[in-house]
Amino acid sequence: MNGVVVRSKKRADARDVAILRDLGVSTTHEAMGRLGLMKPYMRPIYPGAQIAGGAVTVLAQPGDNWMIHVAIEQIMPGDVLVVACTADSTDGMFGDLLATSLKARGGVGLVIDAGVRDVRTLTEMGFPVWSRAISAKGTVKATLGSVNVPVVCAGALVKPGDVIVADDDGVVVVPRDEAARIAEAGRAREANETEKRRRLEAGELGLDMYKMREGLAKAGLVYRDED
Amino acid sequence: MNGVVVRSKKRADARDVAILRDLGVSTTHEAMGRLGLMKPYMRPIYPGAQIAGGAVTVLAQPGDNWMIHVAIEQIMPGDVLVVACTADSTDGMFGDLLATSLKARGGVGLVIDAGVRDVRTLTEMGFPVWSRAISAKGTVKATLGSVNVPVVCAGALVKPGDVIVADDDGVVVVPRDEAARIAEAGRAREANETEKRRRLEAGELGLDMYKMREGLAKAGLVYRDED
Amino acid sequence: MNGVVVRSKKRADARDVAILRDLGVSTTHEAMGRLGLMKPYMRPIYPGAQIAGGAVTVLAQPGDNWMIHVAIEQIMPGDVLVVACTADSTDGMFGDLLATSLKARGGVGLVIDAGVRDVRTLTEMGFPVWSRAISAKGTVKATLGSVNVPVVCAGALVKPGDVIVADDDGVVVVPRDEAARIAEAGRAREANETEKRRRLEAGELGLDMYKMREGLAKAGLVYRDED
Amino acid sequence: MNGVVVRSKKRADARDVAILRDLGVSTTHEAMGRLGLMKPYMRPIYPGAQIAGGAVTVLAQPGDNWMIHVAIEQIMPGDVLVVACTADSTDGMFGDLLATSLKARGGVGLVIDAGVRDVRTLTEMGFPVWSRAISAKGTVKATLGSVNVPVVCAGALVKPGDVIVADDDGVVVVPRDEAARIAEAGRAREANETEKRRRLEAGELGLDMYKMREGLAKAGLVYRDED
Amino acid sequence: MNGVVVRSKKRADARDVAILRDLGVSTTHEAMGRLGLMKPYMRPIYPGAQIAGGAVTVLAQPGDNWMIHVAIEQIMPGDVLVVACTADSTDGMFGDLLATSLKARGGVGLVIDAGVRDVRTLTEMGFPVWSRAISAKGTVKATLGSVNVPVVCAGALVKPGDVIVADDDGVVVVPRDEAARIAEAGRAREANETEKRRRLEAGELGLDMYKMREGLAKAGLVYRDED
Amino acid sequence: MNGVVVRSKKRADARDVAILRDLGVSTTHEAMGRLGLMKPYMRPIYPGAQIAGGAVTVLAQPGDNWMIHVAIEQIMPGDVLVVACTADSTDGMFGDLLATSLKARGGVGLVIDAGVRDVRTLTEMGFPVWSRAISAKGTVKATLGSVNVPVVCAGALVKPGDVIVADDDGVVVVPRDEAARIAEAGRAREANETEKRRRLEAGELGLDMYKMREGLAKAGLVYRDED
Repeated sequence: MNGVVVRSKKRADARDVAILRDLGVSTTHEAMGRLGLMKPYMRPIYPGAQIAGGAVTVLAQPGDNWMIHVAIEQIMPGDVLVVACTADSTDGMFGDLLATSLKARGGVGLVIDAGVRDVRTLTEMGFPVWSRAISAKGTVKATLGSVNVPVVCAGALVKPGDVIVADDDGVVVVPRDEAARIAEAGRAREANETEKRRRLEAGELGLDMYKMREGLAKAGLVYRDED
Repeated sequence: MNGVVVRSKKRADARDVAILRDLGVSTTHEAMGRLGLMKPYMRPIYPGAQIAGGAVTVLAQPGDNWMIHVAIEQIMPGDVLVVACTADSTDGMFGDLLATSLKARGGVGLVIDAGVRDVRTLTEMGFPVWSRAISAKGTVKATLGSVNVPVVCAGALVKPGDVIVADDDGVVVVPRDEAARIAEAGRAREANETEKRRRLEAGELGLDMYKMREGLAKAGLVYRDED
Repeated sequence: MNGVVVRSKKRADARDVAILRDLGVSTTHEAMGRLGLMKPYMRPIYPGAQIAGGAVTVLAQPGDNWMIHVAIEQIMPGDVLVVACTADSTDGMFGDLLATSLKARGGVGLVIDAGVRDVRTLTEMGFPVWSRAISAKGTVKATLGSVNVPVVCAGALVKPGDVIVADDDGVVVVPRDEAARIAEAGRAREANETEKRRRLEAGELGLDMYKMREGLAKAGLVYRDED
Repeated sequence: MNGVVVRSKKRADARDVAILRDLGVSTTHEAMGRLGLMKPYMRPIYPGAQIAGGAVTVLAQPGDNWMIHVAIEQIMPGDVLVVACTADSTDGMFGDLLATSLKARGGVGLVIDAGVRDVRTLTEMGFPVWSRAISAKGTVKATLGSVNVPVVCAGALVKPGDVIVADDDGVVVVPRDEAARIAEAGRAREANETEKRRRLEAGELGLDMYKMREGLAKAGLVYRDED
Repeated sequence: MNGVVVRSKKRADARDVAILRDLGVSTTHEAMGRLGLMKPYMRPIYPGAQIAGGAVTVLAQPGDNWMIHVAIEQIMPGDVLVVACTADSTDGMFGDLLATSLKARGGVGLVIDAGVRDVRTLTEMGFPVWSRAISAKGTVKATLGSVNVPVVCAGALVKPGDVIVADDDGVVVVPRDEAARIAEAGRAREANETEKRRRLEAGELGLDMYKMREGLAKAGLVYRDED
Repeated sequence: MNGVVVRSKKRADARDVAILRDLGVSTTHEAMGRLGLMKPYMRPIYPGAQIAGGAVTVLAQPGDNWMIHVAIEQIMPGDVLVVACTADSTDGMFGDLLATSLKARGGVGLVIDAGVRDVRTLTEMGFPVWSRAISAKGTVKATLGSVNVPVVCAGALVKPGDVIVADDDGVVVVPRDEAARIAEAGRAREANETEKRRRLEAGELGLDMYKMREGLAKAGLVYRDED
């Protein structure tokens, strides 16, 4: 059903959200069993931003940002706005005025499967956006969509309140009720990497550290010298 | 007809061009009634450049930059070179030598629906380029095209002398004889935005500021609480 | 034949490699007769890097980075790792741990026709990567490929030991036994450009400097004034 | 969680499925309020097929068809196999042997967000496939995925047992428990179109039949004669 | 300016239109000096259609087909409807009901830089369409555009009354006042090809027939035997 | 080096070529160890063609078909013309006159990593073409390339005399001196499939026929019933 705004208040625990933000996208995605990733065409408008927050979702008609205005009222401090369209679009559905409003409500960033504009001002504001395009194309306000319904954004399912983690590697979605488990698994994974990094820096080969040689030989790998 | 160079001298008023440059792409595009935009695949080679100028247009064979040499002679101070190809191409048809020449003639930038190369040097020169690709692919000088004929560049019609406005949001084309009207309309729009920004910063919702609630309700928008 | 690791030790002369690095991609590509270029979708993860080195090649199953671990053992100081896949993929097959290991072995960069992740850390490490995508998508270690066999990477043939030159303009491949000849040709070309740049800066037209006017007229180019 | 096979037996009522098949994709999609559509890159391998059936879903590693073998055991007569990948892929993960097996189990078609091969034989068998690519690229059987979990296929959420409707216009997904309602709504819509078609054939304008003139005038539409 | 319908009655001579239709796209495009072609992503929904007619143009908001209804009233017998969007879209903005209406008014085909649906029915009706996509995605009727203004459709400028020629090779646009000249030039070209075809069939080489050997040798072409 | 025509006469044994043609692309590609495939964007202009033949290769400047005329002289009966470009292009570099000439010399088909035109006539002639695009865009004859040098075509390395196999599944390249071995391996594979097909038709599961259950269980696959 379309044309619905769901008032969603349930969010993951703020400490788990903070852990996921610090882990970043690649570690979180691995901790989830390599699931939950948006497609790699979603890129940040400037490098270095790293955020996590609860999703307020929008399903919009392409080229129509009416529902984004509706969604901003549903933002709680720390939330991330997630905009999906009913068909592919690169129109600039979000700009500096919407960012000003979203920021004033406590929103920490935008993930939009469409275009964004005013990127210079957004960069100066330090307001991070992950989008499929940068485009000045103006939009209309004519057709209803929905807010806080499950949406597919850039190939990933996002339900309201899910934790969105975004950094220079892309965007990953953690289901709200798995946030604690994933945060824990990610931390364990990260602890494990420090020691690995030290050994690799010292010149040890992954082949040895991960004990891959036997498996490779069993699979039939053959070495020979150049002619 | 192909193989023609038109000596075009008519340009928009310099004050209007300066206003359009300061307004930038998104505001100018809105002031035009959301028309005139090039496709969003046109991206600047470095962030932060913001230009406007009269178009000298080139229609080139893909992978052949002979006519760009021809066009540079037609550049007047403040102009922007606009290169379109007769078929899609990403070849690097423009590099630092051409930029040196274009700059020496007073050209302020390049918009090319193809590739550009030597981007590190161009960045150091502060010579802004909007292109569909960065590519070292070398070009030939073998086939005639035309200079200062109407061209379709990245989906937009450009006539010689039209005002090209380009910044981090993309590229927009303002017909020469509409420059004054659009500059005025853009300024009015911008003045209007300052007050809006202040109110949004103070936490007022776009829903209220733009008086959208009634329209949304009439369209059938329904609110409900999360299960 | 697949599942083979060739121990390749032959590299081009280090002085030629250094010359090619300083020439950069566009000049090297021109010196080769406009051949050897990878497709322009190969982009650096940060601007400003400029490298050259001998290729250690990997042919991998998409989404499987097992053979990258195998390849790192074959790296000699100054080498560049070149990863091709048997089908198009954007998966993040390489991250900061592999970069740490590759760097510890003396590798100077990565060229991968797939995705890369941990780009923020890689940027902080100053470890340059040219890739078709940035993606956190994790990979498996399940299927054999080959190391140091000829591969097609981003449309270019790369044989082990070929010289890879990469900068902001893209990536070009110089066959190992042509490195000396191309380095020489590139230097001659570059020397030639300094004088040209000076003349163009002084306002001379390419039309005159390259003596193009006669050729253009013979081809039928017509000049006329704007109506 | 990955590596799971859910034995799903719940399907929509067969009569509703038959109605949806006869309505076809465009009408079904409209009856759903313009939702549920897969992206238009999903194309049939031959024209004229029109199917509907319950979804057995597969989430596969790109280039790995192990789980498709697993999924075929879960097929019930009348079902449609729906294959999604954890990253974009065009590999030919399905061919005539799998089609033979799927058909023998009662499967009526395949929807795969990847490639398919043996398309000539599949066409001769009358086995319909909607895919993003045709590719001979062979696959491995090395990595677990899941069967009958919710998946995102070509931008649409598909849950096991949902009704897949596919024809020359594309693929649409009807949630299992909405099948009856949508079938009904689609039939009403279709009945309504017969009369419209007759009137349009007779030369009546949509402008009049849909009473659009007033709305257009109110929106500000202006008519003028050609200069 | 947007929101305008121009009542355009001027068309090219019907005999010239008929000649252009018979010449087809490739010959017409050559006769124009290799200009006027739409981008090759424009494909017919079924093979074998070959049409020519005067353009009635539409500039539409993506995903909104309101103006197509307006445009049909402007169709004269023999016309082709040409639909451009203000931003890229694949939505199915045209289906069998609109085709019924367009056909009833004498329209001979549709060229749309967006999607089309009901393609099976359109094929059965023998109503030819060239589009960038096939998509069931439904559209709204909410935003004004314009009819019979100059538009850029698939990279080509189309003015109302221009002659659209379309066949299996794509779509080409002939300016209305050049139709007679191009028809003549195309016929001359075609007459010339019959004799060429006969000689090539008899085994004569293009190298000899077109007397290319001297030019190739002068350009430096070298022959050598395989090692 | 560019600007070279190599007179290449060495071809694989005609019986092996005939076997490879009958095996088709998917089986040949599997017999090669899943290598040698061109990218799946290479599509036939009509369904049902199935060819194999020795490659005469062309490396052309995009949009310039001069070297295709040169190459036709090098065709021996049974050969396939393979055209690669030095940069991506969709221009229609080949049409019915070139096909007439190629056919008259005994050529059996064309594989071109660019566009083709006159497809209706080519279809009527029964002259098969695999291309990346269909486009009427005319080409020039101005820049040298090479004939019968190794080229990269649609991501695959092709050396003169290699066997090109092409059908509805795409295009695969068999190195000339591996043709006999691959033909043999392909036949063995095919013989093996007939029995498999019979068993699958009878309802046996691939899970059982390929004895996959143990491997899946060992990898950790879990079955559970729907909630």
